[in-house]
Amino acid sequence: MMATLDLTAAQTVIAAALASARARAAKPLAVIVLDAGGHPIAFAREDGATFARLEIARAKAKGALGMGADTRILAERAKGNPVFFQSVAVALGGDMAFSPGGVLVRGPQGLVLGSVGASGDTGDCDEECVTAGLHAAGFNQEQTR
Amino acid sequence: MMATLDLTAAQTVIAAALASARARAAKPLAVIVLDAGGHPIAFAREDGATFARLEIARAKAKGALGMGADTRILAERAKGNPVFFQSVAVALGGDMAFSPGGVLVRGPQGLVLGSVGASGDTGDCDEECVTAGLHAAGFNQEQTR
Amino acid sequence: MMATLDLTAAQTVIAAALASARARAAKPLAVIVLDAGGHPIAFAREDGATFARLEIARAKAKGALGMGADTRILAERAKGNPVFFQSVAVALGGDMAFSPGGVLVRGPQGLVLGSVGASGDTGDCDEECVTAGLHAAGFNQEQTR
Amino acid sequence: MMATLDLTAAQTVIAAALASARARAAKPLAVIVLDAGGHPIAFAREDGATFARLEIARAKAKGALGMGADTRILAERAKGNPVFFQSVAVALGGDMAFSPGGVLVRGPQGLVLGSVGASGDTGDCDEECVTAGLHAAGFNQEQTR
Repeated sequence: MMATLDLTAAQTVIAAALASARARAAKPLAVIVLDAGGHPIAFAREDGATFARLEIARAKAKGALGMGADTRILAERAKGNPVFFQSVAVALGGDMAFSPGGVLVRGPQGLVLGSVGASGDTGDCDEECVTAGLHAAGFNQEQTR
Repeated sequence: MMATLDLTAAQTVIAAALASARARAAKPLAVIVLDAGGHPIAFAREDGATFARLEIARAKAKGALGMGADTRILAERAKGNPVFFQSVAVALGGDMAFSPGGVLVRGPQGLVLGSVGASGDTGDCDEECVTAGLHAAGFNQEQTR
Repeated sequence: MMATLDLTAAQTVIAAALASARARAAKPLAVIVLDAGGHPIAFAREDGATFARLEIARAKAKGALGMGADTRILAERAKGNPVFFQSVAVALGGDMAFSPGGVLVRGPQGLVLGSVGASGDTGDCDEECVTAGLHAAGFNQEQTR
Repeated sequence: MMATLDLTAAQTVIAAALASARARAAKPLAVIVLDAGGHPIAFAREDGATFARLEIARAKAKGALGMGADTRILAERAKGNPVFFQSVAVALGGDMAFSPGGVLVRGPQGLVLGSVGASGDTGDCDEECVTAGLHAAGFNQEQTR
């Protein structure tokens, strides 16, 4: 269980997430890692991923952090109350995207160390790549058992 | 009946709203008090409330003030005409959140002195804490009888 | 030496800063406390302080945090290179104000726990009130000896 | 002479720039690589670099690209006409920082492939790290002879 999300860890997450994307022949991805305050630590956009992918990845990661839940859960909640959640997205200045692929980075005792966001393929695929990246770097491993 | 929403009154509202939140074991809240011009007087974010909570609390308080109605009423109206109300949220630059918890502060003769917004738990719980805070500070008491 | 900047500590800083302002008959102040990620924990605006005061206090606190130095130092540096520092203020979206009164909150080993900003009187007076607030709450005491 | 600024090249630039920073004991840096459209390909923020460093690095890189010149040259020009250049910084919404460290990435025939920005130490040091990174990745080598 990693206790710190530093630059080395963030780069490991991104490299492993992109390796996972290539292994499953995903569309080109953008992946970003944010610290606990929502500020970027590292980012990579694969060749062929459009420029908007960074913004969507960032919005997923920032939204997960801001609401304290992965965007898979937030997207599910938003279906039941779209008007409220849409107004929240606007109130947060776009720091929100209701699709899987924004995942909290958990440390010991469930402490939130930051978050990761990916965009490029389907939300499910984006999230799988993020999860693969987090596991490779030693984060969030207990959640998968 | 209080006739002025000054800093002391705003801090009383916040302290009582947070005491109410703790008494009912609510999730960590952010509470903000705005003056009649929509400008913040005081704010507090409990330990464990994410950074987005301030923005959502602010959006509730500002939205109530901007539309001249508590967000409980606005959220109800928005359900019947989501496209219009969503465009309002965008037009207001995010100064709106369609969920209970944004409450107008009323003085004598119903004069609007400002507003209070809270976010962190359900909209209903957020609003109950705000109402408890307002009553403790001597505001809005006639509305509950 | 306090090691955590939680809501209770932030409110103590603000109360003591405002008590200091009243003791020295300062103009009405706005005071804000940010966490290490630059997100507000608490703030208060005294009766008579204009609405812009909170924005200026926030800009001082956020600028100190973003540049890793109190705004007294940044204001001094900006005098020698005004074009660069002005462009930084714009690049940071206004999260910067070149006047004393934005002060880093230091914990053990100099770790930055957050920052405090005040605005309302002269920069020197604003900063003195912030420092009084920080000392009252057990922060930054070694810097004054 | 590299003819393409893809993700692999961008990551090489960043890794070599940060290696150069560590070799010269620079303060913690943020480094960003933009494509010819001004959109980020990759970035990294070293542990200890404040969150504003990425914004300043981005502003340097974007400003160089937007004006078609390295920020060393732009900073020099701005000294002679500060009012105009400051208005440019505002007109560009903060996509400009008048300090060395924003460098155009040149391909064959001088074609602009993108730009790199760094922030954390002095402008001179930031630029030296960027140049080292570009050379390591096979860019801009003719400019130094």
